Amino acid sequence: MHKVIIGVDIGGSKILSGIINAEGRVLIKRKEPTLPERSAGDIMDGICATINELMQISGITPPDILGIAVGAPGPIEYITGVVKDPPNLNWRDLPLRDELSKRLGRQLLLENDANIAALGEWKYGSSKLSEHLIYMTVSTGIGGGIIIGGELYRGRDGGAGEFGRMNIQMSAGQHSGILAADLEGRASGTALALQAQQLIKTGAGQALLDFCPAGNPITAREIGAAARNGIPEALGIIQKAGQCLGIAIANLVNIFNPERFVLGGGTALGLQDFWSESIPKYLETGVSASLRHDLTIEFTALGEDIGLLGCAAAVLQEAEKRRDMAK
Amino acid sequence: MHKVIIGVDIGGSKILSGIINAEGRVLIKRKEPTLPERSAGDIMDGICATINELMQISGITPPDILGIAVGAPGPIEYITGVVKDPPNLNWRDLPLRDELSKRLGRQLLLENDANIAALGEWKYGSSKLSEHLIYMTVSTGIGGGIIIGGELYRGRDGGAGEFGRMNIQMSAGQHSGILAADLEGRASGTALALQAQQLIKTGAGQALLDFCPAGNPITAREIGAAARNGIPEALGIIQKAGQCLGIAIANLVNIFNPERFVLGGGTALGLQDFWSESIPKYLETGVSASLRHDLTIEFTALGEDIGLLGCAAAVLQEAEKRRDMAK
Repeated sequence: MHKVIIGVDIGGSKILSGIINAEGRVLIKRKEPTLPERSAGDIMDGICATINELMQISGITPPDILGIAVGAPGPIEYITGVVKDPPNLNWRDLPLRDELSKRLGRQLLLENDANIAALGEWKYGSSKLSEHLIYMTVSTGIGGGIIIGGELYRGRDGGAGEFGRMNIQMSAGQHSGILAADLEGRASGTALALQAQQLIKTGAGQALLDFCPAGNPITAREIGAAARNGIPEALGIIQKAGQCLGIAIANLVNIFNPERFVLGGGTALGLQDFWSESIPKYLETGVSASLRHDLTIEFTALGEDIGLLGCAAAVLQEAEKRRDMAK
Repeated sequence: MHKVIIGVDIGGSKILSGIINAEGRVLIKRKEPTLPERSAGDIMDGICATINELMQISGITPPDILGIAVGAPGPIEYITGVVKDPPNLNWRDLPLRDELSKRLGRQLLLENDANIAALGEWKYGSSKLSEHLIYMTVSTGIGGGIIIGGELYRGRDGGAGEFGRMNIQMSAGQHSGILAADLEGRASGTALALQAQQLIKTGAGQALLDFCPAGNPITAREIGAAARNGIPEALGIIQKAGQCLGIAIANLVNIFNPERFVLGGGTALGLQDFWSESIPKYLETGVSASLRHDLTIEFTALGEDIGLLGCAAAVLQEAEKRRDMAK
C-alpha cells in the first residue's frame, strides 16, 4: 500500500473526512453534519469513529499513514493548536490539536480551514504552485488563506487571513439592524439566508418560499434557485453580496498584488454562475491597471474536496521540511 | 571617512535628500518642494544637484558611498524600476531608476516610498526588527509597507501595500461628490484639505479661514490648528478621517495578524494628538480579541527622517545579501 494522508475538514455546517494519496486523489470520504449544538468532545469522538471506519473499509493500517491533518474554523493559535473563538461554532479556547491527537493516538497538523484550502489550491488546483496566491472561502462564514512564496502566511500567532472581518461599509449599522457590518455579515451563506428570512418576514419575499422544501429554513442554495427562476428579491440579495465580495477582493488585490485570487466554499461555488462575471467588474474601478494586469481571479475547480486536498498538501509539505532539516 | 548612504525620499509635496551613516544618523539633509508641475526630468536634475551639493558640503567623495536608495510614490514595477501611475504626480511609466542612475553615474535602489519608510521603521524605529510589521503613511496620499519575516513583501510585481486604495464605504459615491470612495480619498492630507475647502465654499466653515495664512489654501496643518482652538467643523473633519483610518487599520490587522502597526507621514504625525487615542478604539469592535492581544499600534518616532533612514536600511540589507551570496 502506498502511503496515504488522512484529512479532516471541519466546517461550520459539515465535517468532511477522507483518505487521500500523495498524488491528490481522494480515495474515500465521508460527509457529516457538524451539528454545532453537540459538545466539542462529542464532535471529536465522531471524527475518530469516522476515521477508523474509513480506514477499515479501505484496508488501511496505521503504518500506511504518512500523516493526519485537520482544518478547523479559525482563529487558531498555531503554536498551541488551540481554537480560540470561531464565530460559527461555540468552541472557546478548545485545545483541538492535543485533544484529537490523544483520541487518535498520533500527532496531527491543525490549520485554520481557509489556510488548509489555500494549500490545497496551491498544490493541486489550477493555480498550481503560484508564488503569491490569495484564497477566499465563502460558505457558512468567510475566511481567507494567504500563500506567500509558496508558504502559508499565518501572522504573529496564526490569526492572519480573517477576511470575513473586513469592514467595507462604515455606516452599515445605521442602515440595517440585522446584519453585521463586516464582509461575513454581508456576503456569507449565513448572511444571505438572514436577508431572505428578513424579506419573507416583512412580506416582500413571499415568492422565495416556493423554493424552500416544506418546513426547511431558506439557505443560499434556495436563494440561488429562486434567482435563476427570475425572482428579483433573490437576485437582489445575490447581487448585493457580490458587490461586497467584489469590493473586498479589490481591497485585497491592492494590498497583496497577488498572481492569483481564488474563490471557494459552498456559497461561492453554488452562486458561481452569478458571481463569476460580476465580481471581477469591481476590480476595474477599485484596482489600478498595473495590479490588474495579468491577475487571474477564479473559482476553485477542486470543489468541496479542496480542504481534504489541503490536508494532503500540508502533510506532504511538513514531511518535505523534515527531510530538508535531516539533510 | 566611514561609509555613508545617500537617500532620497520623493513625496507628493516634498523631496527630502540626505546623507546617512550606517548607525542610522542623518548627517546632513535638505528638504525641497516637489512642485509636481515640473517635468520629471527637471525634478531628477534637481535631485542630482542637491546630492552633489550635500556631498560637497560634507566632504564626501564617491568612494565613501556605500549605496544610494530612492523612495518614490508607487505603484513601482520593482524589477524594471519604472514608476507606473502615482496618483499624486503626473508621471506615467517613468523609468526613474535608470534615468536617475544615468544622471548620478552609479546604480541605485528604487522602492515605493511607503516600503522604504517601513524598512526605516523596521531597522531604526521602536518596532526594531519585528517579524511582522505593517506601516501606513498618511500624507499627501496614503500608502503602506508590509514587512514579513524581516523582508519587504512586494507582491507579484512590486505593487503590494496600496492601502490608500482600500474601499471602506461602499455607498460613498452617493453621499459625497467631491471625495473618492477609497481610504486616500477620505483620510489623506489632500482629502482633509478638500473637505475643509468644501465647507468654506458652502459657508459652513468660515471659522477655518482664520487659521490660514493670508491667501494660502487650507491644509491639514491649519485644520489641526483650528480643531485645537475648538472649531467644531475642523474637529469633525479630523474625527471622520480618524474613523476611516481606524476601520482600515482594523481590516489590515484582521488580514495580517501583525506584531506591530505603525503610522507615519506628515498628516498622521501632525494630527497624532487627535488620532493616537481615537484610532485604536476602532480595533476594539473590529478585531477579535486574540488578534488584538499583544498588538502595538503606534506613531513612528522617526518623524520625517523615516524615509531617509529607510534608504539606509535598504542599502545595508542589500549589501548584506550580497555578502551572504558571495560566501
